[in-house]
Amino acid sequence: MAKPYKGFEPKWIKNAAPADSYRSIFRWGDPEFVKYPKESLFNLMKDTFEMSDADFAQYNMDTGFDKVELPDNPPQMDEKHVKAFREMLGDAKVSQSDYDRLSVAYGQTAYDLMRMRQHRIENLPDIVLYPGETEEVEKIVAYCVENSIPLYVYGGGSSVTRGVECIKGGVSLDMRRNFGKVLNFNEIDQTITVQAGMSGPKLEEALNNAKTRFGAKRAYTCGHFPQSFEYSSVGGWVVTRGSGQNSTYYGCISDIVLSQKYATPQGVVETSHYPREATGPNLNQIMMGSEGTFGVLTEVTLKVFRYMPENRHRFSYIFKDWETAMDAAREMMQKECGYSSVFRLSDPEETNMMLRLYNVDDTPLAPMLDVFGYKDMERCLFLGFTDGEKGYSKNVAKNIAKIALKHGGMPLTGYVCKSWEKGRFNDPYLRDTLMDFGIVTDTLECSVNWSNMEKVHREVRKVCHALPHTVVTTHMSHCYPQGANLYFIFITPMTDAEEFRRYHTTILDAIQKSGAAISHHHGIGKMFAPWLEGYVGKTEYGVFRAIKDYFDPDYIMNPGGTIGLDLEEKDKKFLKEK
Amino acid sequence: MAKPYKGFEPKWIKNAAPADSYRSIFRWGDPEFVKYPKESLFNLMKDTFEMSDADFAQYNMDTGFDKVELPDNPPQMDEKHVKAFREMLGDAKVSQSDYDRLSVAYGQTAYDLMRMRQHRIENLPDIVLYPGETEEVEKIVAYCVENSIPLYVYGGGSSVTRGVECIKGGVSLDMRRNFGKVLNFNEIDQTITVQAGMSGPKLEEALNNAKTRFGAKRAYTCGHFPQSFEYSSVGGWVVTRGSGQNSTYYGCISDIVLSQKYATPQGVVETSHYPREATGPNLNQIMMGSEGTFGVLTEVTLKVFRYMPENRHRFSYIFKDWETAMDAAREMMQKECGYSSVFRLSDPEETNMMLRLYNVDDTPLAPMLDVFGYKDMERCLFLGFTDGEKGYSKNVAKNIAKIALKHGGMPLTGYVCKSWEKGRFNDPYLRDTLMDFGIVTDTLECSVNWSNMEKVHREVRKVCHALPHTVVTTHMSHCYPQGANLYFIFITPMTDAEEFRRYHTTILDAIQKSGAAISHHHGIGKMFAPWLEGYVGKTEYGVFRAIKDYFDPDYIMNPGGTIGLDLEEKDKKFLKEK
Repeated sequence: MAKPYKGFEPKWIKNAAPADSYRSIFRWGDPEFVKYPKESLFNLMKDTFEMSDADFAQYNMDTGFDKVELPDNPPQMDEKHVKAFREMLGDAKVSQSDYDRLSVAYGQTAYDLMRMRQHRIENLPDIVLYPGETEEVEKIVAYCVENSIPLYVYGGGSSVTRGVECIKGGVSLDMRRNFGKVLNFNEIDQTITVQAGMSGPKLEEALNNAKTRFGAKRAYTCGHFPQSFEYSSVGGWVVTRGSGQNSTYYGCISDIVLSQKYATPQGVVETSHYPREATGPNLNQIMMGSEGTFGVLTEVTLKVFRYMPENRHRFSYIFKDWETAMDAAREMMQKECGYSSVFRLSDPEETNMMLRLYNVDDTPLAPMLDVFGYKDMERCLFLGFTDGEKGYSKNVAKNIAKIALKHGGMPLTGYVCKSWEKGRFNDPYLRDTLMDFGIVTDTLECSVNWSNMEKVHREVRKVCHALPHTVVTTHMSHCYPQGANLYFIFITPMTDAEEFRRYHTTILDAIQKSGAAISHHHGIGKMFAPWLEGYVGKTEYGVFRAIKDYFDPDYIMNPGGTIGLDLEEKDKKFLKEK
Repeated sequence: MAKPYKGFEPKWIKNAAPADSYRSIFRWGDPEFVKYPKESLFNLMKDTFEMSDADFAQYNMDTGFDKVELPDNPPQMDEKHVKAFREMLGDAKVSQSDYDRLSVAYGQTAYDLMRMRQHRIENLPDIVLYPGETEEVEKIVAYCVENSIPLYVYGGGSSVTRGVECIKGGVSLDMRRNFGKVLNFNEIDQTITVQAGMSGPKLEEALNNAKTRFGAKRAYTCGHFPQSFEYSSVGGWVVTRGSGQNSTYYGCISDIVLSQKYATPQGVVETSHYPREATGPNLNQIMMGSEGTFGVLTEVTLKVFRYMPENRHRFSYIFKDWETAMDAAREMMQKECGYSSVFRLSDPEETNMMLRLYNVDDTPLAPMLDVFGYKDMERCLFLGFTDGEKGYSKNVAKNIAKIALKHGGMPLTGYVCKSWEKGRFNDPYLRDTLMDFGIVTDTLECSVNWSNMEKVHREVRKVCHALPHTVVTTHMSHCYPQGANLYFIFITPMTDAEEFRRYHTTILDAIQKSGAAISHHHGIGKMFAPWLEGYVGKTEYGVFRAIKDYFDPDYIMNPGGTIGLDLEEKDKKFLKEK
């Protein structure tokens, strides 16, 4: 990032957002951190978008440096409820300020960011509460049930599905401030119990320092590192069924969770905490994916893993084409040689961009690729690293090398993987600097079986590319013997939130029609909800509704379309052939 | 088994059971196969039971060689329904004969066998149907719903929880005859789709021979080998959440299932078939464990694994005591070096018996154990084997060896493991020869976290041993980083079914009170049902009932207490501290 441009450089916004500004809410994470494209990437985008330097001479969207003031949006809540909450929790845990309400109203899909830049203020909560103890959450839920007050939860706020949005107003629980404590650490069972608002870095820090922190014999890791790691919460991971970038080894959060505790309108619900059991339907797997519609997740017990970065083997390879690369990836997943931790295969268009983003274009590797017949826009980049015990980790890396070579893969050393690691959590910052100039980037992902991979990749990309002047990159990650997650990332000039939404809809339609699962790990929220019943099937979806009716017959938990439970029939989409 | 006794040998029944006899129903599996204890084991039992040769001079329970004739138990079904079923399926798929009805009325808990030996005929179906196609099952379900006819399913019949028993009469679907076809094999995704009545050996045979059978590139295995393997069905595995003896590597059936199809009173239900997804509650995990109470499982898609027996490493070790052995087992599970396929650790009392059963007492190993300080009734036998790719399998075995040695384990070579393998599927035959003389053997198992392992082992065994003259052996199998399955096997002189049931109840009470899950992989059925709501919790159990009410509001699917759904309040047990 540090290299100065040789030609024209746009005025990337590098100064921190003021603490009370819109920008401080919608921009990613650390207010001091900035990321912007290097010159070759900027030139690539200009070419693709058919834009000139002149188009980057001024900001094309509101940069949001103004102070949050919402005179037209006063809280609607009856004073007696406000008073009740203040008595219940104390004044410090209650806020009705404009800033606090807006700061929990949106997630992180481009639709959210664009609306905020357009100062479209909608779906604010009337009050924000900052509970600190499980019992406080239980009291809040009981009070809301008694008084029919809609109840929302804001964990880390990185939802890309409008999961946190307070469609019906009411209460939002902001879990960031007081609800991130470690409740128990059990080294014998290798588990940690935390409050649902625990953030990724705090959890990982506690585990890495388990020896001093808990008097443990060794250091541990949570194994769950989504791109949103730094600004997401354990609770959010769990209720949306998230996955981290290391899930191929550590599993998705649905594999890592051992037990959960919820405050529901029906009372406290605790799932069991055994590694496996045969005692009826699996309640843990019922509650995960409920996205706040059955109750508020208060406590989570997670499995933890030994922290052994010294055993890590980094690798990267380049394959001649997507088909061969997919075959190699599948063989790596099905060989039963163990699984690598990060496992990431880019398609040709993504490879084209990644080689610039990871600075490979500046190294002697770049011309070598052409010489050896790995052609631009055909070649596919594959990278990752292994984890686990020394011999296990080594065996996985050895087998990956063997399979890659057998499929004509050329080793690129661990350099490319290290470049990827540097950017793995801060790519979202790039999104903000680009959006100042009216360039939007967002992602969709889906779960696909191997036998349908080529079709889904082809058909979804076709729809993404139907919008001209668009970069569409795709990669495979979160891999399994039976299939993988496909990620679609698009970058395109766009300034209107509704235009974004229409485009987003065409892609979700395409995913549904192509025979993929509409979400591998982003959840459903309110944005993907219209597709859910059609995807799951009508009779099948009835089960979700039956559970909802049991837990929350008055529909006060995350109401307004979340996972489609209170969606009107006319707003649903039935596109899947069954 | 072949060695002749030196002293008195009881007249073990070695001749086959007549095809129309009670014995042909209640005895295990192959009518020609016989297994009986060798002399040292017989002597051990006599000592423990304080019995003499005279007690084995005559059979102490009915041997069941008489023909099944049930004049007092005619079918109760209205002729119009019988006619309707005959028209729907054809005469060959319908039976009301005494033998056919009795043959699907009981499972394989000692309570079932003892009742049959006592000729206690109860809970017979009024008609047995043998559907061959999914659509036939769907029609049967629809007809039963319309006419309020109770509907039961008999898969392989190895239930030890009274899961198949037709408490309310009505229809039983015997899936053994016509419902075991392969519907699809997908080598790209490594999956196989079968009808729910598919038997273990048939499935494994198809997969081992995938090259000739499906034109596949290689041979596969199902990875699921419960002790009941030869006489259980895929459907039974799935609806009860079974586990095979190789689950430590391959996973429980709940990990192996990719998707399921059910015929429910609400219509056809198909779960999705993606390796992971974030689309609301996990329907696959809701249907598994329903044990026929939500609908009839018709089709299952299973993940399959590469068949690579050439990579297998067999091992066995002996540890000085249970505590050290548990520590070693936990370290093996938590080291992240991969997992062995079979992983089986016997406690001192089981070790005492196993060394005889596996003939180690006849080898030079036996005196060596004593010499090196591995004392009888303190030492613990640990055995298993690894699977997977060559390097993976080797690395697991290497780490197990390293950890075993570090914990003072003495290697016993692969011999003991091979002996175990020989008996792994035919130990149930021993049960029948013993029961002729009034010796009952049965098992209970439970899921336990490591930190509670010692307590559960101690407290449950105490209750098992409260019955004098009882051999109680315990082993750990199906292991995980967070805990393991504990198996309790008891052998005791007993001839009355109700006495058995009272004893069985005291053990289930003890499991519940000790803080273990009441079933790791046997399911709940009707026998364990009184404990389920207390175990899961009242609010939590309400979820199961809500799903039941959605699928089967008239309670015609496996009615009579299965998983407690239609159990009266007075019949439930609430023993768990929450």
